[in-house]
Amino acid sequence: MKNRIYIVGMGPGEEDMMTAQAIRALEESDVIIGYPVYLSLLGERFSGKEFLSTPMRQETRRCQMCFEEAKKGKTVSMVCSGDAGIYGMASLLFELGKEEPETELVVIPGITAASSGAAVLGAPLNHDFCVISLSDLLTPWERIEKRLIAAAMGDFAMAIYNPSSHKRADYLQKACDILMNNGVEPERACGYVENIGREGTKAHTCTIRELRDCKVNMFTTVFIGNSQSEIVNGKLITKRGYQI
Amino acid sequence: MKNRIYIVGMGPGEEDMMTAQAIRALEESDVIIGYPVYLSLLGERFSGKEFLSTPMRQETRRCQMCFEEAKKGKTVSMVCSGDAGIYGMASLLFELGKEEPETELVVIPGITAASSGAAVLGAPLNHDFCVISLSDLLTPWERIEKRLIAAAMGDFAMAIYNPSSHKRADYLQKACDILMNNGVEPERACGYVENIGREGTKAHTCTIRELRDCKVNMFTTVFIGNSQSEIVNGKLITKRGYQI
Repeated sequence: MKNRIYIVGMGPGEEDMMTAQAIRALEESDVIIGYPVYLSLLGERFSGKEFLSTPMRQETRRCQMCFEEAKKGKTVSMVCSGDAGIYGMASLLFELGKEEPETELVVIPGITAASSGAAVLGAPLNHDFCVISLSDLLTPWERIEKRLIAAAMGDFAMAIYNPSSHKRADYLQKACDILMNNGVEPERACGYVENIGREGTKAHTCTIRELRDCKVNMFTTVFIGNSQSEIVNGKLITKRGYQI
Repeated sequence: MKNRIYIVGMGPGEEDMMTAQAIRALEESDVIIGYPVYLSLLGERFSGKEFLSTPMRQETRRCQMCFEEAKKGKTVSMVCSGDAGIYGMASLLFELGKEEPETELVVIPGITAASSGAAVLGAPLNHDFCVISLSDLLTPWERIEKRLIAAAMGDFAMAIYNPSSHKRADYLQKACDILMNNGVEPERACGYVENIGREGTKAHTCTIRELRDCKVNMFTTVFIGNSQSEIVNGKLITKRGYQI
């Protein structure tokens, strides 16, 4: 039998928003590996497990640890916030796994912030949409800019991940300006959600002109409506089509 | 206390891929309303509930039924496959809810096919991506075409929903041609998954040129890689950035 690494999407944080499949994978595991914040979100029932971690930006090392532990004959879970395959560790583990034929990789999907944040705001993504990260740690800003322009051109609703950090305090402002310079009208319906599925969840709706000047943090997911979106009784709604 | 309608994303089908939150909402409900196929996927534990349904294309009627039942003082769940807010019933219920101030709408997110299908294929969406439906029931084809062109321009990975049906047998072919005419090279790494999270799950990887001539059905989700995507040991992988 092959060694096994589960790559587990844990959803936004609370166990209530994990799937039964994800919980079972963690229960089956001897070792749970992940970014420290994610490990700290895991509840009591996993307290008997071995926890391993590396600091931020040491993702490659963290993935290597999974293979090292698996080779000892342990069942391993790598936890990712949200979905394992949306800005998560799945692709990096598959890349490293090229050289590890004796280890099986099993992806367990989870609720990504596009879904969990949308649920808090109303229904901002209820038609075709894009997910774009504003983090330029691993992606050149020119590529992010090109994607924002394309998303505006295609009249996509958008979920924006990593809209800001200490070093990138003005990135959301830059992104809003790019969108407004490419056909998104200043009154476009938008919203953002802080601390999804954790203590202090807070939703806000606004226009993109207002969003431009909002201070958001790295625990925020931003939603930009498409040209048909509306704010209805405080909820951000994108119509599914021409239904009504 | 307000009447309550839960709009529940049930994930791809099996209960194992629902969240605890979703299961609790259904257990709390007196009536469960949904498209017949989705109701038939619900397990034994909900057999004591009242089930209500309407045929396909009667979504507005189905949503009105939710409000009618809620007004009788019942707790209602509207079930949607995948996520409630991704081509689901959330926005239509919020629109109808404008005139129903005494009813509270609570969205419970679920695992959408972009996540669950990606998990089967490997990690095809592991960077910025678009979700596009090829169904022109509620959207003019010109808008779908415009979005495909924008997605190609932005070098997004893509999840394609509703790639085909009896009446739209050649839509995936048309979509692939549009992408290839807008900069997607014929060797672009792609994949598709049939019957995600149900009996007979099957994943395939191929190039977009091969995908063009594949026969897919309405229970298929298609994935188009971005320019960096690769097929590695039969898995479709899109890199998270410049990590390795």
